[in-house]
Amino acid sequence: MTSRFPDERRREVLAATRDLVAERGYSSTTVEAVAAATRTSKATLYRQWGDKAALVVEAVSAGSPLAIDRIDTGSLAGDLAAVVDQLAARAAVDVPIVLGLAGAGQRDPALPAALSSRLLPQVEALRAVVARAVARGELPADPPAARHLPYLLAGAVVAPTLLDGPAAVADAGYLRSVCDDVLLPALRAHP
Amino acid sequence: MTSRFPDERRREVLAATRDLVAERGYSSTTVEAVAAATRTSKATLYRQWGDKAALVVEAVSAGSPLAIDRIDTGSLAGDLAAVVDQLAARAAVDVPIVLGLAGAGQRDPALPAALSSRLLPQVEALRAVVARAVARGELPADPPAARHLPYLLAGAVVAPTLLDGPAAVADAGYLRSVCDDVLLPALRAHP
Repeated sequence: MTSRFPDERRREVLAATRDLVAERGYSSTTVEAVAAATRTSKATLYRQWGDKAALVVEAVSAGSPLAIDRIDTGSLAGDLAAVVDQLAARAAVDVPIVLGLAGAGQRDPALPAALSSRLLPQVEALRAVVARAVARGELPADPPAARHLPYLLAGAVVAPTLLDGPAAVADAGYLRSVCDDVLLPALRAHP
Repeated sequence: MTSRFPDERRREVLAATRDLVAERGYSSTTVEAVAAATRTSKATLYRQWGDKAALVVEAVSAGSPLAIDRIDTGSLAGDLAAVVDQLAARAAVDVPIVLGLAGAGQRDPALPAALSSRLLPQVEALRAVVARAVARGELPADPPAARHLPYLLAGAVVAPTLLDGPAAVADAGYLRSVCDDVLLPALRAHP
């Protein structure tokens, strides 16, 4: 079926979906509006994506793909700095959308599953960052803080917006100091 | 003016608002619906609260007041454990609402200001927890990790729901291990 829906049209639909979600929020974005904005039929969109949640999550991910799995600087501090630089570069666009999706996800069970499946490879890539540091002897085996790393990074990225409002966006300076002041000392601490 | 609006009616309005937000989300909750549910006039609600954001934020806060400022166990580990136990006890109710409010806050500028003003005293209380630990000699003066504490705690509470979906709620076991494995070692680390 994909052969009948060219890549260029696909990108156009994803871009239009992203614009609509950024403008209206997840709840108020409809497959109908995406269809109208891209002169596509609703049936085609449902055939290609299955449901609104899958369409929106692919649209958001396609707009700012994280590539933590491509990071390998040779040191734990270097890898974590590269991770948070990637997160910071996307925060202004991604945080409002992710919070909007999470809020909407309470009432749309398909949405969190679609989001999680996109985030899982990035969480695995973070595990690999720690595993390489252990292999290099930079960290003790199985550091207790490691299992919290994905949660702490995700939390650190959204927390300024939660506590200080939508104008407060996690930037690279703040996230690097979270690494230096909290994550690295915690990972290096001996249990 | 408050004298014409008895406390009992006030509590009733706040409870009804909380129920409506939990059920419909922030965006779909209207002052009109609160007025109808409580047989109050919209004019009265606007006179008492000013706007929907202030009404909702007071309703949410009144339902589960944090009282970090009342914690003083005599040790840093004890204080932090008491803090996260309070957060965990409220997470199942508060996290969906806070995420919904944060998502809606992108389009309603009054909301984040109202939320922040409620959260600020709790952030100050966390600063006091650290200051007491420094005064007792448990921590070095001005530990670099301390300024991130409110963000890391807020982030840790919402992160499971963001990464693993709405059924995943931060519980006391997880939050206590974040304290033991990450926050305490980071606070104690010497710069």
